[in-house]
Amino acid sequence: MTTDTSAGATTDPTGAEGQDRLRDLYADWSQIIATTPDLSMRLFRAIFDEWHQPTVEPEGVTYREDTVGGVPGIWCLPVGADESQVLLYSHGGGFAVGSAASHRKLAAHVAKTLGAVSFVLDYRRAPEHPHPAQVEDGVAVFDALVASGIEPRNITTIGDSAGGNLAIAIPLALQQQGKPTPGQVIAFSPWVDMENKGETLTSNNDTDALITRELLEGMIAGVLGERVAPTTPLANPLYADFTGFPRLYMNAGSAEALMDNAHRIEERAKAAGVDVTLSIGEGQQHVFPFLAGRSTVVDQELSRISDWYRQGR
Amino acid sequence: MTTDTSAGATTDPTGAEGQDRLRDLYADWSQIIATTPDLSMRLFRAIFDEWHQPTVEPEGVTYREDTVGGVPGIWCLPVGADESQVLLYSHGGGFAVGSAASHRKLAAHVAKTLGAVSFVLDYRRAPEHPHPAQVEDGVAVFDALVASGIEPRNITTIGDSAGGNLAIAIPLALQQQGKPTPGQVIAFSPWVDMENKGETLTSNNDTDALITRELLEGMIAGVLGERVAPTTPLANPLYADFTGFPRLYMNAGSAEALMDNAHRIEERAKAAGVDVTLSIGEGQQHVFPFLAGRSTVVDQELSRISDWYRQGR
Repeated sequence: MTTDTSAGATTDPTGAEGQDRLRDLYADWSQIIATTPDLSMRLFRAIFDEWHQPTVEPEGVTYREDTVGGVPGIWCLPVGADESQVLLYSHGGGFAVGSAASHRKLAAHVAKTLGAVSFVLDYRRAPEHPHPAQVEDGVAVFDALVASGIEPRNITTIGDSAGGNLAIAIPLALQQQGKPTPGQVIAFSPWVDMENKGETLTSNNDTDALITRELLEGMIAGVLGERVAPTTPLANPLYADFTGFPRLYMNAGSAEALMDNAHRIEERAKAAGVDVTLSIGEGQQHVFPFLAGRSTVVDQELSRISDWYRQGR
Repeated sequence: MTTDTSAGATTDPTGAEGQDRLRDLYADWSQIIATTPDLSMRLFRAIFDEWHQPTVEPEGVTYREDTVGGVPGIWCLPVGADESQVLLYSHGGGFAVGSAASHRKLAAHVAKTLGAVSFVLDYRRAPEHPHPAQVEDGVAVFDALVASGIEPRNITTIGDSAGGNLAIAIPLALQQQGKPTPGQVIAFSPWVDMENKGETLTSNNDTDALITRELLEGMIAGVLGERVAPTTPLANPLYADFTGFPRLYMNAGSAEALMDNAHRIEERAKAAGVDVTLSIGEGQQHVFPFLAGRSTVVDQELSRISDWYRQGR
């Protein structure tokens, strides 16, 4: 099958088009949120399911819906990937929005780059299901993977934004339960500060196209509910004990309001002796890997993650 | 990789759960439309991009974004499929909503069943681009496929709802231009009556969970714009000359308000000597193949289409 690809190149060599694509989507959502004061959770979820749009369909990946440990989700199966290496991918969206569907392409790009497979779980969302439902679902998937014969060291918990929080909280919960932990952890633009007091919320307020203190306030109320304190370590890993935590890779964009969340986790985890790598994407927005397939900045970042992943194996 | 599939069967042997899943989504959209009188086209498009949700991810299919004949879209590439057999898939959504993304899974299920590949085109949508922009984009893709070496008889134009209209209108336009036509045409719940005067709009008003005369009125105004008459044959194939038209397979649900569109096309095409097959899904909603992977009714329907496709080859 020969097709006219000359008119349809999907990778912009400068990375500029890609960056615009994510920022424009965020600006559009922000506009809808600002002009629709009574925006229902139903419509909030509808627009955040568009999160896949900036990501180019990764080639050479098949998919399979499944239920693992009682939790539904989508397997991303790059053709020829090593199925014994599993990325347990938790999607972002403030614990309330986003889905396996909205993050399928992103998780598949990462799986393909790492030569692994990825299971994107549809954990129970807030506010219907407050903390710790999301962590419990992640632990249930991890336990089921181990029970099925996957080596814990071959499992990577990974996620973005609120899912980056879960990627960190799931191993912390496993440690508390005296279970083996994943071999490594990857968090894209992790959102962990449930006290909503980060400095970059203010200093990057003008450059972040999506995240505001007010938006986070609503998300925090939803996930903590009536009974969970914002300093609970499994809800806010800034208060967690990182002793014995797996090696950790994080990234964040320098333009984003949540950047200091990654810096603060880095500081805390390093103080506990954890092997931490933090990559800052200059001028990038929240969860810039969503531009996979469309931006050389992301191509380079995925390549960096791949090197890090293989060095630790 | 072993996983807990016992708790996650995706095919309901009775077909009942699947049927509910599509009807429930339609009822939910109808509720949003009814209770949001000023629903923007932006949000209308957001909710209709959820159309993929009732469809289970088909296993063993990879995807590739491309531009064919200047028109962007997504290739659905079942592993091992014959890439010389191409389904040119036009998505539904009243010419105004829906996308390659919302129809990727459906088009992939059909491609897999038929042993072919599918290109789901993101044609220019109304109201920004009125008729005949959509037909022109379909013809441009067809021409580019033929120019790339695909045999016209190995191309099938296919689509659902407004895309079912396009699946029929594209060959009609090719005939007018004196070009070869596709070997066969498939239309799921085609919507062709731009005069909005079908009998089942009234008789199935209580059973159709989505389509109403009022909804269609808005879509018609959008696609016809100021200058196109509702009896224009390429916009309303009920007024077209079907002499020499390719063999045609259609289906529709007996519960849907647009059912008589398929019956009327059948009557008109048969009168012109066309080989027409019409399959009515008892009690089914608009574009019931969206339940692929979740309903035995759809499993059987896809199997019927496969038999029809192979008999004509």
